[in-house]
Amino acid sequence: MTRKIVIIGSGAAGMTAASEARKLDPRADITVFTEDEHIAYSPCAIPWVIEGLMEWKDIVMHDASFYSKERNITIRTKTKVTAIDGKNKTMTADGREHSYDSLVIATGGTVFVPPIDGKDLKNTFIVRTVNDSIAISEALPSVKKAVVVGAGVIGLEIAVALRNAGKDVTVVEMFDQVTPRIADRDIAGKVQKHLESIGIRFMFNTPVGAVQGKDGKVSAVVAKDETLECEMVIFATGVRANLEIPKMLELDIGVLGAVLTSPTMQPYSKGRLVNDVYIAGDVVQCTSAVTHGPTMSQLGSTAVKQGRIAGRNAAGAKDICGPTMSPWISMLDGMFVAGTGLSEGLAAWYGLEVITATADGYSNARYYPGGKRTTVKLLADASTGKLVGAQIVSGCDVNGQINWLSSVISSGTTVDEFLSDGENAYCPPTSMVRDVAFTAAESLSIKFKQA
Amino acid sequence: MTRKIVIIGSGAAGMTAASEARKLDPRADITVFTEDEHIAYSPCAIPWVIEGLMEWKDIVMHDASFYSKERNITIRTKTKVTAIDGKNKTMTADGREHSYDSLVIATGGTVFVPPIDGKDLKNTFIVRTVNDSIAISEALPSVKKAVVVGAGVIGLEIAVALRNAGKDVTVVEMFDQVTPRIADRDIAGKVQKHLESIGIRFMFNTPVGAVQGKDGKVSAVVAKDETLECEMVIFATGVRANLEIPKMLELDIGVLGAVLTSPTMQPYSKGRLVNDVYIAGDVVQCTSAVTHGPTMSQLGSTAVKQGRIAGRNAAGAKDICGPTMSPWISMLDGMFVAGTGLSEGLAAWYGLEVITATADGYSNARYYPGGKRTTVKLLADASTGKLVGAQIVSGCDVNGQINWLSSVISSGTTVDEFLSDGENAYCPPTSMVRDVAFTAAESLSIKFKQA
Repeated sequence: MTRKIVIIGSGAAGMTAASEARKLDPRADITVFTEDEHIAYSPCAIPWVIEGLMEWKDIVMHDASFYSKERNITIRTKTKVTAIDGKNKTMTADGREHSYDSLVIATGGTVFVPPIDGKDLKNTFIVRTVNDSIAISEALPSVKKAVVVGAGVIGLEIAVALRNAGKDVTVVEMFDQVTPRIADRDIAGKVQKHLESIGIRFMFNTPVGAVQGKDGKVSAVVAKDETLECEMVIFATGVRANLEIPKMLELDIGVLGAVLTSPTMQPYSKGRLVNDVYIAGDVVQCTSAVTHGPTMSQLGSTAVKQGRIAGRNAAGAKDICGPTMSPWISMLDGMFVAGTGLSEGLAAWYGLEVITATADGYSNARYYPGGKRTTVKLLADASTGKLVGAQIVSGCDVNGQINWLSSVISSGTTVDEFLSDGENAYCPPTSMVRDVAFTAAESLSIKFKQA
Repeated sequence: MTRKIVIIGSGAAGMTAASEARKLDPRADITVFTEDEHIAYSPCAIPWVIEGLMEWKDIVMHDASFYSKERNITIRTKTKVTAIDGKNKTMTADGREHSYDSLVIATGGTVFVPPIDGKDLKNTFIVRTVNDSIAISEALPSVKKAVVVGAGVIGLEIAVALRNAGKDVTVVEMFDQVTPRIADRDIAGKVQKHLESIGIRFMFNTPVGAVQGKDGKVSAVVAKDETLECEMVIFATGVRANLEIPKMLELDIGVLGAVLTSPTMQPYSKGRLVNDVYIAGDVVQCTSAVTHGPTMSQLGSTAVKQGRIAGRNAAGAKDICGPTMSPWISMLDGMFVAGTGLSEGLAAWYGLEVITATADGYSNARYYPGGKRTTVKLLADASTGKLVGAQIVSGCDVNGQINWLSSVISSGTTVDEFLSDGENAYCPPTSMVRDVAFTAAESLSIKFKQA
């Protein structure tokens, strides 16, 4: 009998699930329902589209007809799922009932915009979909001053994009630093300084009071006792899981406001695993590989990883998805900042006492031309010496390096084990003979023994 | 009582040992004996000095007076240790006897030049010391054609340097591929093709018959049935451990012709650990982190890591050095090639049956400008699915990426565990949303299940 697989959501998680299910089951009937108009694009790339480095069409990998022709996957765009009957395994969309054997929920998240006056005025935006990207690009020529609300990674990437597009940019942040929660103040301070050097202005400890308008269009943002004149406001205020579909199925919601999920990428309902339903992406509450406590990992890379497993399991596999380190990276006008595992803030949230050490070095041998300064910070559990987090800031790409430290930490390595067992490849054009991560570990080991 | 620490050898291992011993014991009497004229330089950088990218002075980190003034370490250059009495802990150098409490042996290795006619003619060189580098640079202006013997990483780096300096370069290799032993034929083939595209000629399966001379100077190399006219010959024919000092102490030599070494970086003599003697660098036989069998790791990064531990233990610490993955990398005219753990050839040497998979991808999101093709090969134990090796070839730096895979493999990860637990950071300018290593792992997992 042909297996009917229905996937709700066409982001990275949903489209990966569809393609992976197809790989495993060549004959399954696979349908993706999505409210979005465009599918299979990279929302992470929108800042560079806004900057003008590429067009929105460039960041769309495939359209619906590709999926239909090449992978025999049906995509129903601009289609809302209005009801699901989990018991009878049916769902309603476009007023019609559809049955399924396996369901994949990949409904993602929505930017949470604070409920302030004027938040819906013309030229207020979020950054999430291709249509957001198109709207921002269209509005851009008439903009001289822009306000970005939120100094998380996406807020900063957008701020850089707007700045590089010649705009006057102010970033307003409720907390007292950029990238709060994921990067510590010392690392964040280097990023802030770099962005200030290209003319981005920051206001910290500043909740946005209201957006003011003129003729229905943004004219200013009220922040603390300042009125910031601007023609554009972008809310980069964090993503909340879309729970409409999970609630229809009465799925259990975790403490972080997303769907509790098993290692097989299945949700629970009233404490019981839900059969034949799989879930992936921004809607999922994950488990931290460091603390084994709840965490969120609303990253494109996580969505693809989870989507693959959800899709395979929906097609009959029994794969599992391990807990997450949530390694992340951003490139901000030539500065690369990355992290994995716990920051000091996250550690405090888990009630974990940490010790930290930071070291400076270069991206390659000091005498080799073109080297960039690289700073590595390591965090360890103060009582066991186990590494729990790492952050890097550099003038060079450190993606592989943060993946490396992520792997080291996730395997439960203590700082002394890292020093006895860790190794780095080396040639003068690509690294120092001893990676700066080890220099940080040496300081950390001394602190641990003194503690 | 002041601890007397004597270190023999002034390469990366020896100088690191000296500095680390000083950090741990501020009052120790530390002396380094070396036959070399220059100390604390980077032999790995010599190819780029020859190419003209920097001068030999640039690759010398510090001179003897720096060590004397800044670290209170005495350096005795151009000084040969002629005798050691391990029982009485004394040694003879410069005709005088010196006592020691701890001894660090960091005598390194010497390039093995095959015993062929003409090998000592003028303009035949090895690449090991600053003096080699100076001699090659001085000879270079009169050279039009050069022959490099040996297509290992150093041979290739030298070949590129000579080619970029405008010379006609032929590389003669006994085996049937470049980087034999450490990289497999498919990966090596990509490197070979790239180097051929810049005009380097290769002769494989070709032992060098003789070096011919005219007026005492190199005039040609006889290779198979060809006589290659040339004015310079460089032997990059592999490094053998310098065993003169170890033999004075009757240290046990391993099957690979280097000194058997404990995790505390101590040698053995007749099967017993030798107290108060530590050893590090190219003279050491290591233990493979994959097979736990014997291996060599004659890398600058290994020398520094081991030197650090030897130096600390010589000053009273009880640190250990784990087994090695020997991650390596080279940059060859803009192509980066790297590996870790076992290649197919090394696996066969250990009698291990492996399965392999290779995947192509990009160094960043496909739509983001400037991406380079990246190929990742993974090797797993055919019976257990445990990853045992990785190789990467890319137009971009992959140092962090090979460190990452090295860490993943050294922690005993199976290919399926890598798929369930592995993660990569992502942003469009620095990576694909799913690293190509996972694509390779997916193929490998399928092969493993079919095997």
